[in-house]
Amino acid sequence: MVDIDQIIAGVEAGDRSALARALTLVESRSPRHQEPRRRLLAWAAARGLDGHRVGITGPPGAGKSTLIEVLGLAAIEAGRRVAVLAIDPSSVLRGGSILGDKTRMERLSLRPEAFLRPTASDGALGGVHARTREAVLVCEAAGYDLILVETVGVGQSEVEVASMVDTFVLLAQPGAGDEVQGIKRGILELADLLVVTKADGDQAALAQRTATQLRSAMSLLRQAHPSWPVPVLQTSSVTGLGIALLLAVVADHRATTSADGALLRQRARQQRQWFNALLHAGVWEVVAADPGVRAAAAAAELSLDAGALASLAASDVLDVVRARLRG
Amino acid sequence: MVDIDQIIAGVEAGDRSALARALTLVESRSPRHQEPRRRLLAWAAARGLDGHRVGITGPPGAGKSTLIEVLGLAAIEAGRRVAVLAIDPSSVLRGGSILGDKTRMERLSLRPEAFLRPTASDGALGGVHARTREAVLVCEAAGYDLILVETVGVGQSEVEVASMVDTFVLLAQPGAGDEVQGIKRGILELADLLVVTKADGDQAALAQRTATQLRSAMSLLRQAHPSWPVPVLQTSSVTGLGIALLLAVVADHRATTSADGALLRQRARQQRQWFNALLHAGVWEVVAADPGVRAAAAAAELSLDAGALASLAASDVLDVVRARLRG
Repeated sequence: MVDIDQIIAGVEAGDRSALARALTLVESRSPRHQEPRRRLLAWAAARGLDGHRVGITGPPGAGKSTLIEVLGLAAIEAGRRVAVLAIDPSSVLRGGSILGDKTRMERLSLRPEAFLRPTASDGALGGVHARTREAVLVCEAAGYDLILVETVGVGQSEVEVASMVDTFVLLAQPGAGDEVQGIKRGILELADLLVVTKADGDQAALAQRTATQLRSAMSLLRQAHPSWPVPVLQTSSVTGLGIALLLAVVADHRATTSADGALLRQRARQQRQWFNALLHAGVWEVVAADPGVRAAAAAAELSLDAGALASLAASDVLDVVRARLRG
Repeated sequence: MVDIDQIIAGVEAGDRSALARALTLVESRSPRHQEPRRRLLAWAAARGLDGHRVGITGPPGAGKSTLIEVLGLAAIEAGRRVAVLAIDPSSVLRGGSILGDKTRMERLSLRPEAFLRPTASDGALGGVHARTREAVLVCEAAGYDLILVETVGVGQSEVEVASMVDTFVLLAQPGAGDEVQGIKRGILELADLLVVTKADGDQAALAQRTATQLRSAMSLLRQAHPSWPVPVLQTSSVTGLGIALLLAVVADHRATTSADGALLRQRARQQRQWFNALLHAGVWEVVAADPGVRAAAAAAELSLDAGALASLAASDVLDVVRARLRG
């Protein structure tokens, strides 16, 4: 049995292992966890603590974890409490987690002001962990005021991360070519901030050229926020170049969007999208519990085995759902 | 009004413009098209004509269209009738179609034995055109016996294409590095056949090295079919190198999987997955037509505007769905 009062008390007291247990509860799909889960979320929502939600993504090899570690340490020096939620949209067939690696962000993980949570995607809602939004909320309720949501730039994961944060930071590594550093076109449009990493040593000049290229690529895009032309920064996790500036610009994005009301509108839009996604994802589960629908689905599956066309079989089941709701 | 009998008669008679109209009907979401759509699909399923469904994908710049054109022409020389269905999982924000380009595959499109159909993704079911599976079936019923399903290697599109074909061909361009030519790990595992394109001129040696790299990358993966070690070929759409071999190996994959029953099992599994995907995608549409559910959703949206948490608001609506189905 989950003692939800004890977990909440622990989270309030700043106990990181209680927070870890709370996030496990948030991620749970077990029916007996749903009631304590609801209570935890209602508590977190009622707490009214807010954080700055920052998404950080980029192609494999762009140096995401290293940057997040130095950025997190710099934020702690500036008095912030930092939670890192790493999402791994893992291999479709294998399900292995590359982010479970214990050696990642070792220095950051040793700081009492930091909380790190790697989560493998469960494949729901298009691949990214659907419960990460709720994990963000619980971390905020636990008093973390800078929430870094990290994902590797694969598939839909960046789009989903962009839809749950206030500030979306896109990393690129030094490089050149037609395809701007492997960044997908649709993703560039989502960025609030671009960062060319590894701007040190042999790569410094190339990083400079890459930043110039990215600036010209961005100038071709419609500016999403009238008061926020997307900056392109350069950082080095080795020399520390640009880290303080990055932290300041990230904070500035939040201040700018707060001031003109864009942040409130964005969060309202995100809540609406999330609501719709949850409804769409949950409704089949609810409907399939109906005995009539379940019988129709079983019959349709038998007809499939006998060679029926899937789309016609699915239409038959949906007709039964329609009939069960009528009257 | 759609004259479905006329369309079917035209498709049976080999009229490509009737086939184009049939595919437009297959793609239609308009309520008044659903009944003729069902009749068309029932006709296609009853026709019992089968084709070899081949998926062709790869990163942007790998030369997909050029390869498909020469491959299609070679297949026609060998007596096949070739349909090419190109899926464009376009930019998330913009929705522009890169595949509408009229100049693609000009030589192939002039052949009476070929039928080309570019379709922009409608964003349903994770981004790939959900109706492509049905388009495949209708093309088969129209007498095309080699169906090439093309997609650009972005997002989930390769995974979805792999789930609708018999043979999944992955292209890579000559290159080197840790990330094998930008091919995502999970995608490599889905390939039945790897092709290094542009193996000509200056790039021939690099293509050779890339093929060797891919072979060693594949050797690290579990072999999906015991009787089919995944071949790595090299082709040139300029010199014609490897095209005849590619056509033969594609046919060999089909023969091998037919002989050991793997093809039948794979198609049954695909039908099952497709059925599930359609049910999940369609059920909210059906449920939301219920007045009680619609009222609950409207109330939940108001509560969202007042600051309620999306996941709790969604739970409330799902409770109403549950109640409407009871008794």
